[in-house]
Amino acid sequence: MGTLYVVGIGPGAEDLVTPRARAALARADVIVGYVLYVDLVRAWLPEARYQASPIGSETERAQESLRLASELDRVALVCSGDAGVYGLAGLAHELRAAIDWGDHSPPSIDVIPGVTAATAAAALLGAPLGHDFAAVSLSDLLTPWDAIVRRLEAVAAADFVLALYNPASRTRRRQLAEARAILLRYRSPETPVGIVTDASRAGQRMAVTDLANLLAHEVGMLSIVIVGNSQTRVLDGRMVTPRGYSDLMTLTQHVATGEGLLRKERA
Amino acid sequence: MGTLYVVGIGPGAEDLVTPRARAALARADVIVGYVLYVDLVRAWLPEARYQASPIGSETERAQESLRLASELDRVALVCSGDAGVYGLAGLAHELRAAIDWGDHSPPSIDVIPGVTAATAAAALLGAPLGHDFAAVSLSDLLTPWDAIVRRLEAVAAADFVLALYNPASRTRRRQLAEARAILLRYRSPETPVGIVTDASRAGQRMAVTDLANLLAHEVGMLSIVIVGNSQTRVLDGRMVTPRGYSDLMTLTQHVATGEGLLRKERA
Repeated sequence: MGTLYVVGIGPGAEDLVTPRARAALARADVIVGYVLYVDLVRAWLPEARYQASPIGSETERAQESLRLASELDRVALVCSGDAGVYGLAGLAHELRAAIDWGDHSPPSIDVIPGVTAATAAAALLGAPLGHDFAAVSLSDLLTPWDAIVRRLEAVAAADFVLALYNPASRTRRRQLAEARAILLRYRSPETPVGIVTDASRAGQRMAVTDLANLLAHEVGMLSIVIVGNSQTRVLDGRMVTPRGYSDLMTLTQHVATGEGLLRKERA
Repeated sequence: MGTLYVVGIGPGAEDLVTPRARAALARADVIVGYVLYVDLVRAWLPEARYQASPIGSETERAQESLRLASELDRVALVCSGDAGVYGLAGLAHELRAAIDWGDHSPPSIDVIPGVTAATAAAALLGAPLGHDFAAVSLSDLLTPWDAIVRRLEAVAAADFVLALYNPASRTRRRQLAEARAILLRYRSPETPVGIVTDASRAGQRMAVTDLANLLAHEVGMLSIVIVGNSQTRVLDGRMVTPRGYSDLMTLTQHVATGEGLLRKERA
């Protein structure tokens, strides 16, 4: 009986992989993952043994990694971002419980967290997640669209910052348009929106725009879209959400008493 | 003109600090932070120069770090978890824009993301954040309590997994009790709840319980509380949220066809 490490490698840059994740990958007898993530890891650890699989076969991939972990010592299953946020950690736990292991002991599962896509994107945009936020996936493969709509309505009405995962794909654009329409019923068209594509990977692109102009921007499978709340502002090109509703007042008071720093009136 | 690095060091374990964060800390002329986080970093980088400040003076700390960055080359402002999630990244950007820099150029700000407390806690608990989730802080220092209540209602009604930051302190217990009461209007008392305190630090404690029994457990300033959605299950002691609403069916079909693995009926 071995251990399956479900490893979040972060958004894709080598220097955002935690040492714990790196060690789990380096020590693994085999590294299993979607071909795009396996190729990333292979560039960092060319000597390791890999088993890459195409997208869309998450269940097979998780099941295969569990099977390998029941035979080997250490198996790593690679996830982008955090292993537990729309990642394979849950599926691995579910499969481990669902499989009849017969005479074998089931492998242990160790989930190694990582920098999730929303916070990696947020760091590039400024600080849009500075207060309460919700993460919603716009993929309706496993979740009925009306459940997603209900979540978007709730988020919009309760003034959450919103991080949209899987906002669109080449063939799926309607969901993003509908999400924007729902948000516009509760928020101003000037509400800041940040879009980051391929965060910290080759070809990284980002834009700070607003709800009015969101659909004019390129948004794809590898994009994260962050929609501000009623307090979010664009300051010197960065998207910033204050930590509450009385922060600005407090802030101005503090700046007024700062040593050697003059107070500037806030717009 | 220098650069202020707002650095998320993750939940506290040295092997969950990203290399990018570590490099920013190691190269800084001075490292500014709350005394608890500065002590963590000092154990890893004893040679660096530090400026620790007590809790509760976030604005002064961010302002001081900006002032230092306007005079030095590289200043690091330490945050636990991710620098932008209830962290100081937003405050730094706000202050940079609010301060009248006179003849000086304002320092640049570079936010370095980290493993946020919710995903670090989730990895220990299993995979509770496997589907759409919301992060809500129960601290009503800067946010009116009725705004927090509105968010909790929205989260509960729309079946989000909920990650509670700042759930309680020594003197503040009422908010957690009220949050639980709101959730119980929408969710079963058997809804799984995970509590992690001091995740990945000395004295780490965790419990998997349910809404009915939540208040019987120790919850403090350094705890994260994760409340499952209607689909969250406890499997072999781990808290697991499936990635959607049709996953279980798909899963059973896949397991049924698995090579060498027998299907087990799911409860």
